[in-house]
Amino acid sequence: MYRRFYRTFVEYTSVRHPEIKRKNNLNRLSVKDIEYFESLLGKSRVLTQDVSSYNIDWNKSVRGQSECVLRPKTTEEVSLIMKRCHERSLGVVPQGGNTGLVGGSNPVFDEIILSTEAMNSILDVDVYSSVATVQSGVILEKLDSHLKEKGLMVPLDLGSKGSCQVGGNASTNAGGLRFLRYGSLRGNILGLEVVLPTGEILDCLSTMKKDNTGYDLKQLFLGSEGTLGIITKVSLQCPARPKAVNVALLACSNFQDVLDTFVAARSNLSEILSSFEFMDNESMNAVTQLLRLTSPIGTEDSFYVLIEVSGSNADHNDEKLDTFLNSLPKIRNGILATSLTQMKSIWELRERITESLLHDGYVYKYDISLPLVQFY
Amino acid sequence: MYRRFYRTFVEYTSVRHPEIKRKNNLNRLSVKDIEYFESLLGKSRVLTQDVSSYNIDWNKSVRGQSECVLRPKTTEEVSLIMKRCHERSLGVVPQGGNTGLVGGSNPVFDEIILSTEAMNSILDVDVYSSVATVQSGVILEKLDSHLKEKGLMVPLDLGSKGSCQVGGNASTNAGGLRFLRYGSLRGNILGLEVVLPTGEILDCLSTMKKDNTGYDLKQLFLGSEGTLGIITKVSLQCPARPKAVNVALLACSNFQDVLDTFVAARSNLSEILSSFEFMDNESMNAVTQLLRLTSPIGTEDSFYVLIEVSGSNADHNDEKLDTFLNSLPKIRNGILATSLTQMKSIWELRERITESLLHDGYVYKYDISLPLVQFY
Repeated sequence: MYRRFYRTFVEYTSVRHPEIKRKNNLNRLSVKDIEYFESLLGKSRVLTQDVSSYNIDWNKSVRGQSECVLRPKTTEEVSLIMKRCHERSLGVVPQGGNTGLVGGSNPVFDEIILSTEAMNSILDVDVYSSVATVQSGVILEKLDSHLKEKGLMVPLDLGSKGSCQVGGNASTNAGGLRFLRYGSLRGNILGLEVVLPTGEILDCLSTMKKDNTGYDLKQLFLGSEGTLGIITKVSLQCPARPKAVNVALLACSNFQDVLDTFVAARSNLSEILSSFEFMDNESMNAVTQLLRLTSPIGTEDSFYVLIEVSGSNADHNDEKLDTFLNSLPKIRNGILATSLTQMKSIWELRERITESLLHDGYVYKYDISLPLVQFY
Repeated sequence: MYRRFYRTFVEYTSVRHPEIKRKNNLNRLSVKDIEYFESLLGKSRVLTQDVSSYNIDWNKSVRGQSECVLRPKTTEEVSLIMKRCHERSLGVVPQGGNTGLVGGSNPVFDEIILSTEAMNSILDVDVYSSVATVQSGVILEKLDSHLKEKGLMVPLDLGSKGSCQVGGNASTNAGGLRFLRYGSLRGNILGLEVVLPTGEILDCLSTMKKDNTGYDLKQLFLGSEGTLGIITKVSLQCPARPKAVNVALLACSNFQDVLDTFVAARSNLSEILSSFEFMDNESMNAVTQLLRLTSPIGTEDSFYVLIEVSGSNADHNDEKLDTFLNSLPKIRNGILATSLTQMKSIWELRERITESLLHDGYVYKYDISLPLVQFY
């Protein structure tokens, strides 16, 4: 009963948060504005009907009241849109895949939604320097599939990879499930093209692994959630795609065992350790009960650790992983995936936690980082 | 004859570059300033005699005319120094290990030199999150030795590691010889403490792998060469130290073979590839002839490639490296190091190129990045 109610009704953010006031210096969208945008983009890329999916976040926890979604295809179009909005004092919210969990890609009031979904061209992949240059609306998984043919991969992975966009990943400095191995997006993004609120185009689109000329202005846009400008192009360094991957799921009876297992994994698996994720019992119960997934090692333990290794030689990986798993005296319950299907279903337990929580009612979600030892 | 002349005489930068003018709004250092600094730091850390080694760069290509070197030990001392210099309009040049190759750490006129060499404490190493927090004057190699005991390493390495400082590495966004494996300093530096020109202390000293709160202001200081502020503390994420390392040196007859070898190495050595460096014939001749080093594969080829692999299992590394080397039909000349001594002497050929050039007269050095295919 409650669940059905929740699914069909999302309260306006402005109602839930009456303390947030619309800025008086912002104008209302006029018919002339719409006409201008239609002359620029054509009618099909100016949406004024059925825009609720752009107004509501993936979590269904916020809802804006925008009446207009613009879908530019080029940097120049973004520039002209922003120039118009700047001159007319119209509020704008940039939106990528709208998969964010903190409501950052949705309007609160009547801001125009500038969606990058039509900016989806993979512009270049340089196989020598292993750098991909793309428009910001390219979907992460689509880029990864494209790179697969060239023996490369994107250095980040997250549950929403099927719908999140590279520009949104950059704007939110997304961490994701491969952070441990490939590091932060900051380190992997070599260049950006950004349209400033005035419409000015800032070209920081280097494809150099290292570019120390002047101050690295593009860094300011990474993680700034679109508040300083709209990312229109991204160049990204792409590591070699591993030829073999394996996944283990272990049960730990307390958090100290999780920490000790992590330190041991870093030391013994070292270069092939590509993910180390943990879940607590409550999370495991949420995915298994609410999404009806099955845990291959039961749901009776306090903590679960997912370890992924990947590298260029399957035999070497397996040997290292075996040695490591046999070196853990405190872990009495665990499983090593023996098929791709098993690997995927283990990963599902981790990736679909957020989704499972949605089935349990409203979710107020933070994206937080804490020192490891302060987790529990 | 020329060489001796060169070694004993370095022309003032202001003489070699008369087009650079001293700023009129800067005051001259007074006796009262010196007295203030001595009251703050004690006489032993205010140098006014024999300061030529601080005025001249490692390359011996620039020479300033500073009469005062300050050596603070704490952030608070740096802050008070900068406050005084700001109020009195005195020019300041921050200096780390003074190993830079582009003259960035030396004054041109009478600027005060603020040396971080006395700020050399390793403050904390967190073995769970593998994060080291240090004062900026810690020498890179010293930190690396300290981390070795904990199974960790610094994620960068460069020829000057025995004298360069972590703060200088950060200020110049140093790339170094492990860039390929561990990525940019930007991605590895988690936090900074910086003293602004006014003396204000900016605390961005997070030790989180990911900290997305607000704009990432610290990024502006990385690579800005001390022009925006003086880095006083750095927190750095440190990868697991590899248990086994091996090095190969190959000869290539043209640059395309270098590129093809690189692409093959990235694909086949993947996770264990920790360095891929190349030298041209002229560089090889400079190190072998001017420094009397010996190349184990002669000096007759057009290009030389140094490949380092490192990982947690020596047998696996050797097997991967063997397979890779046997897969290169175009490489007819190469050697795989069989001892630590051999590894070191192969690395010396690469690391001492810059030093060897100094023996050949004046060196005007750029620190440049180019797309790979445009190198030759």
